[in-house]
Amino acid sequence: MRKSESRGRTPSSDFVAGNGLIHRRALLGQGFALAGAGTVAAVTGAAAEPLKDPPWSLEFGSVMPGVQTPSPFEKAVARSLSNPNGELRNSHARTPHHLLDGTVTPNGLHFSINHAGVPNIDPAQHKLVIHGMVRQPLEFTLERLSRYPLVSRMAFVECAGNSAPMFSSEPVQATAQALHGLASNAEWTGVKLSTLLEEAGIDPKATWLIAEGGDAAFLSRSVPMKKAYDDALVAIYQNGERLMPGNGYPMRLLLPGYQGNMNVKFLRRLKAIDQPAYTMFETRSYAQVLPGGKTWRFHFLMEVKSFITHPSFGHTLKEPGLYAISGVAYSGTGRISKVMVSADGGKSWGDAALQGPVHDKAFTRFVMPWRWEGQPAILQSRAWDEAGNAQPLRPEFVAARGQTSKPVTNPLQFPNQHYNSLTSWGVDGQGEIKHVYA
Amino acid sequence: MRKSESRGRTPSSDFVAGNGLIHRRALLGQGFALAGAGTVAAVTGAAAEPLKDPPWSLEFGSVMPGVQTPSPFEKAVARSLSNPNGELRNSHARTPHHLLDGTVTPNGLHFSINHAGVPNIDPAQHKLVIHGMVRQPLEFTLERLSRYPLVSRMAFVECAGNSAPMFSSEPVQATAQALHGLASNAEWTGVKLSTLLEEAGIDPKATWLIAEGGDAAFLSRSVPMKKAYDDALVAIYQNGERLMPGNGYPMRLLLPGYQGNMNVKFLRRLKAIDQPAYTMFETRSYAQVLPGGKTWRFHFLMEVKSFITHPSFGHTLKEPGLYAISGVAYSGTGRISKVMVSADGGKSWGDAALQGPVHDKAFTRFVMPWRWEGQPAILQSRAWDEAGNAQPLRPEFVAARGQTSKPVTNPLQFPNQHYNSLTSWGVDGQGEIKHVYA
Repeated sequence: MRKSESRGRTPSSDFVAGNGLIHRRALLGQGFALAGAGTVAAVTGAAAEPLKDPPWSLEFGSVMPGVQTPSPFEKAVARSLSNPNGELRNSHARTPHHLLDGTVTPNGLHFSINHAGVPNIDPAQHKLVIHGMVRQPLEFTLERLSRYPLVSRMAFVECAGNSAPMFSSEPVQATAQALHGLASNAEWTGVKLSTLLEEAGIDPKATWLIAEGGDAAFLSRSVPMKKAYDDALVAIYQNGERLMPGNGYPMRLLLPGYQGNMNVKFLRRLKAIDQPAYTMFETRSYAQVLPGGKTWRFHFLMEVKSFITHPSFGHTLKEPGLYAISGVAYSGTGRISKVMVSADGGKSWGDAALQGPVHDKAFTRFVMPWRWEGQPAILQSRAWDEAGNAQPLRPEFVAARGQTSKPVTNPLQFPNQHYNSLTSWGVDGQGEIKHVYA
Repeated sequence: MRKSESRGRTPSSDFVAGNGLIHRRALLGQGFALAGAGTVAAVTGAAAEPLKDPPWSLEFGSVMPGVQTPSPFEKAVARSLSNPNGELRNSHARTPHHLLDGTVTPNGLHFSINHAGVPNIDPAQHKLVIHGMVRQPLEFTLERLSRYPLVSRMAFVECAGNSAPMFSSEPVQATAQALHGLASNAEWTGVKLSTLLEEAGIDPKATWLIAEGGDAAFLSRSVPMKKAYDDALVAIYQNGERLMPGNGYPMRLLLPGYQGNMNVKFLRRLKAIDQPAYTMFETRSYAQVLPGGKTWRFHFLMEVKSFITHPSFGHTLKEPGLYAISGVAYSGTGRISKVMVSADGGKSWGDAALQGPVHDKAFTRFVMPWRWEGQPAILQSRAWDEAGNAQPLRPEFVAARGQTSKPVTNPLQFPNQHYNSLTSWGVDGQGEIKHVYA
């Protein structure tokens, strides 16, 4: 095999920003090929003969199962667990973003946080009641909801505490999974909440819904009635199949773009009232104390954000050459309109290509071709949404929101929420990747 | 609880076709509510009190696993297997369409056909070679392909033999899974094949690629070079994670809209030549003999098709009232442009609502609100694609393509392929559903 580093066939005019970022037009037609991507893959004439037969081509394979699972070679592709022994406290399972691609989070790997373990709910016994300030209280079984015209949509769900380690004053050396794994993206299918509310006949004076879950945590949150009528769903399918037990089986509230905790799982009650309930999760857990002492309550929206998943901490660039810088961007406000990528720590930026179609309030994958010449680099991404919101730069974000002197490790404290500033990956001359602040 | 059947609040002007089909505008705003959908869910004041606490709300739940799986209550949601004991022949695993919703087929339930079992391939040892009439033979590992800018797209894959039981002269009583379960839909992520071909430098005289799989079946198919340069991918992720072992791990060819067998799994070789290879699967298996004796070879395209999944065989309508008729539509030619639904065996039709965004060569879910009054009904769907192709009616399809006197049971014969005509579900007065021809 020949090495590519000395070929240098990239036309210089294709570089759009410092440190080797290449114009996204290289992704069209033969651009990437001309840029010399594949020369490292060239084989000599002799080696181009058909491959020697590996063992799996010489024997009959295994039986197909009713529900198939990933290859045994992919065992490392799993959620990381904050409470693997089931102690009587909350538990987190984080999505391994650095090992995935595309935009769908497969159901097995969707993040999950549970405050009282994962309940084993019999769907035939579970009911959802809509009551309170209504003309007519209603009760729904899963079977009843399944008869409705269902709506499907892609949507991310993100814990308000996702990326909490990013508030640390020193960069925590950890994967995108450990830093940002409390956000995932799926096709959710369910009944429009507005349809159910109209049947119940909500009193015009009712401005909030109190949503309550049916597991032992009895988690409850106040939801503005306006959001409930806008794009809320009672979701009963996740990527085509019934919800995962850790994601709310048999039904959950889906509030696209709002903090994960409000998307109440195991949904058993929606009570219409004329004020919020001031539940624990809105007055204590997700009421963020700002540097000046002011507290934000009812800070629902997950704002525009992006992070690079490839390459990222845990990966190594084994040799100089062409790479793709890729990651996910999303905004609770709407569609992603633009992602820019820098390879020099923010000194210069190039427009990344967005994978279409770009969905409302859902992961959008961005891709940027990059020639790494073996020099140190700092990779960053920055996203914008269709409402014109820009992902904030770190200095302005930290000034407004504060930082902590050490990593956040106690999962019962929720001091640092709604981090949506940049993530920077520092590549050194050996291709090793560190988490840095830049 | 009160029953809905006597309420009849649907304005008569909302009916758009015979036997209770309701205009899709009922899906917007409060239409479905006004149509009386939810009155069956009304509870008396007393019953509207918070539910009694079920057992799962009184105890701590189970530990979260690294890779989560569906609820134990969903055990029936599995692929049906044609060869569950692993005999040394081919095996089919069919997607349970009648138990799913939305458009994504979750990875555990994606259909799979294997001719030599499921190989256990070590991705570090697997290689893809591009050779033959090329300027430079190339060799790619999974790691190498993963460095490329990747492309993601929704795409269905459908076996050419899917729906073969529909050629039977008498309707086979079976679920949508048994009839149509050899088609699934996923987000596939991979490298554009055109990029790799351009790197290899294909000789302009080469008009075909021979694609060969790396399992013990050594399945090979001839692929027109034009398709290879159009929208073909070498797919390495499926719904965000690495391919399932039964779906081609670690890499497969994806030819959107072309018959499943051509989407060669465990891809190890692409050889550029100036004629097709006339392999077994193109001269014997998928060369369809027509009624007059003429044989179709190289009939690649999976044409426009739809079928109703809800309600369908295996479901029962327990009481008169409002329902949603829903199913999937797709076309190998492009996007679905229209789906019409009939509840009276094709005498009258109404426009179904299409779930957007509608993707190219991918499942599109359609939904049609329906008031079932307890009378017999025959449910059908018919799809059109953006090129103007209509799903053929059964009489014209059977006249052109023939039918068999009994169901096709021998999976080693492939006499009946590319069925894309209608499926009819007959509902009787008790709400039982049969497969009928109409």
